[in-house]
Amino acid sequence: METTVSNKQVILRDYVKGFPKESDLMIVTASDTVEFKVKHGSAAILVKNLYLSCDPCMGIRMREPNHSTLALIDSFVPGKPIAGIGVSKVIDSDDPAFEKGDFVWGMVDWEGYSTLNTAGMFKIDVNINVPLSNYTGILGMIGLTAYAGFFEICSPKKGETVFVSAASGAVGQLVGQFAKLMGCYVVGSAGTKQKVDLLLNKLGFDDAFNYKEEPDLDSALKRCFPKGIDIYFENVGGEMLDAVLLNMKTFGRIAVCGMISQYLLETRDRLQNLPDIIFKRIKMQGFTSIDYIDIFPKFLQFVLPYIKEGKLIYLEDIVQGLENGPSALVGLFTGQKHWQASNPSRSRMMKSYKYVLRLRDSYTNKTTKSVMY
Amino acid sequence: METTVSNKQVILRDYVKGFPKESDLMIVTASDTVEFKVKHGSAAILVKNLYLSCDPCMGIRMREPNHSTLALIDSFVPGKPIAGIGVSKVIDSDDPAFEKGDFVWGMVDWEGYSTLNTAGMFKIDVNINVPLSNYTGILGMIGLTAYAGFFEICSPKKGETVFVSAASGAVGQLVGQFAKLMGCYVVGSAGTKQKVDLLLNKLGFDDAFNYKEEPDLDSALKRCFPKGIDIYFENVGGEMLDAVLLNMKTFGRIAVCGMISQYLLETRDRLQNLPDIIFKRIKMQGFTSIDYIDIFPKFLQFVLPYIKEGKLIYLEDIVQGLENGPSALVGLFTGQKHWQASNPSRSRMMKSYKYVLRLRDSYTNKTTKSVMY
Repeated sequence: METTVSNKQVILRDYVKGFPKESDLMIVTASDTVEFKVKHGSAAILVKNLYLSCDPCMGIRMREPNHSTLALIDSFVPGKPIAGIGVSKVIDSDDPAFEKGDFVWGMVDWEGYSTLNTAGMFKIDVNINVPLSNYTGILGMIGLTAYAGFFEICSPKKGETVFVSAASGAVGQLVGQFAKLMGCYVVGSAGTKQKVDLLLNKLGFDDAFNYKEEPDLDSALKRCFPKGIDIYFENVGGEMLDAVLLNMKTFGRIAVCGMISQYLLETRDRLQNLPDIIFKRIKMQGFTSIDYIDIFPKFLQFVLPYIKEGKLIYLEDIVQGLENGPSALVGLFTGQKHWQASNPSRSRMMKSYKYVLRLRDSYTNKTTKSVMY
Repeated sequence: METTVSNKQVILRDYVKGFPKESDLMIVTASDTVEFKVKHGSAAILVKNLYLSCDPCMGIRMREPNHSTLALIDSFVPGKPIAGIGVSKVIDSDDPAFEKGDFVWGMVDWEGYSTLNTAGMFKIDVNINVPLSNYTGILGMIGLTAYAGFFEICSPKKGETVFVSAASGAVGQLVGQFAKLMGCYVVGSAGTKQKVDLLLNKLGFDDAFNYKEEPDLDSALKRCFPKGIDIYFENVGGEMLDAVLLNMKTFGRIAVCGMISQYLLETRDRLQNLPDIIFKRIKMQGFTSIDYIDIFPKFLQFVLPYIKEGKLIYLEDIVQGLENGPSALVGLFTGQKHWQASNPSRSRMMKSYKYVLRLRDSYTNKTTKSVMY
């Protein structure tokens, strides 16, 4: 039996300016092979990575850090692997809390095998009957993001109106379903007809629109919310936020989860309607899941029964193979290339489904039962 | 003895576009004279107006209303008197709760005499030893604004850093003093050297700067707050808000009281740093005093002892005579005309001291003791 294996990695070439391109990343085989044994006394674990999550914040991490971004997260290091939430299988362990064969999720480098400090790694309960990939999404930080932003920041009440941008995205699709569970009226925006169909027919949104096909976002929102918006779950920023501000109700709440249309712009969109924050006494609050890690158990207690009863679903777009990682990640920011933007700012407002990279062929036909792994 | 008197009024000619000019207002004598008797059965009071407050929100009310501004306040009616907070003396009353000779404060038209519904009028306790004009400011809605925005929205903690824009203004000067009472480190910005001196030498700010003399607001804020800002009390918006966002600390709070530099602009300033709301998990909340009217007694309980002990002062800029009202009000938005703006956007960021219009000569030498009135 072999005791070492080569390790493929996705490396950041250099800090990215503007929008990331596939060529900003490269796939290499690490010069060091991986030994199938973790060093005694290291308290580490050696894992084989199975799923890697593609998340918008990774676009921020590809850029040179500055005082603002460092308040949230470190940048990747040029010449080193990029990193994100992953699901992995333990191959060897020097931490008594983890055993060979355990499944874990947490922050890992984009590579085939990783040696990890176990702080910040969560053990997966394989008795919970969901695809392992879900731990990069609904049952991990993404799920907590949707939960904390919607419930903790927006304090929704039954009957309130909720708007979600990037609504078919990793977080948006959950917020929409949470809103329906709360008895709210929920509308989502997305960037293709197919996604709008999903929102309406699969995810239970009351209404949805394709923002690229709307000549005027303000009119689209007025059509969907003739009486205004109580809660806006913000994923995109820019032009959409500006239109939303015009349509917020008095005492509306905006949970600012992301501004994917704006992060990478050198000159950001001009907002005309920021004074509406005063006129309507709006609360607008940025947040990130890590600040709510304390309520992770409460979140699981909320979400697991709904998953078991089939009342919450989670759509993923699974891309096969580490070598397709760069295009999947870059696709989060540039969207479908075949779409010809009539409005250049809208072409930036891209956020797809939840993108997950699957690294192991052997798992391709077993995506519905984690117990099968 | 005469039983009627003519009534001067300040009338809005027509809805204002852009920045208000003195010529948008006109002073007329009402065609109806005022009878010194209130109609029996009306439950109204007849008052002689003594002080009228000049407030930035009156600039919004001079414009054609829209869905956004109506969420906060009605516009004035062209051809009718403008209105604001005033201090008045009761001449006749058909409401048993008010007697001839009482002093009251509340919303009144800009005119010599008004017949008022008593709902929303507050009786002044003349045993409280402050100038009557203070009820247009520190002891009225302005004081409540500073209190609610600072304490209720920003939840200050001892040792935190606080930045106040338009810091010598009606609200700003109080927020700065509240912040010092809480043991915070507080810095203010203002638009003249004289105002900066007041902040430093009279109002107890730890530091202050003249934003017009700063080539770069970001650098000015970094100089004053090397470790960042916990709380920003926002009065101006635009370029200043953009610089502040860059300098906020993680979990910072922004109470949005006003955006006086932006209200009247057709094209508002571009903000580059709005994504900092996410990076730093900032809470930004618009508010207005009227939403906090329930805590007015709590506010008085807090503020009165400090006033009695001389630990809170309040600076007013008193302008004599209704005929000078238009120039005083317009001056709130255009600032000192002799100042030549090198940066046109900064010339808009004007907010003066608390401006109060005094209507009665007979009160000119008695501004320190309301019991003298």
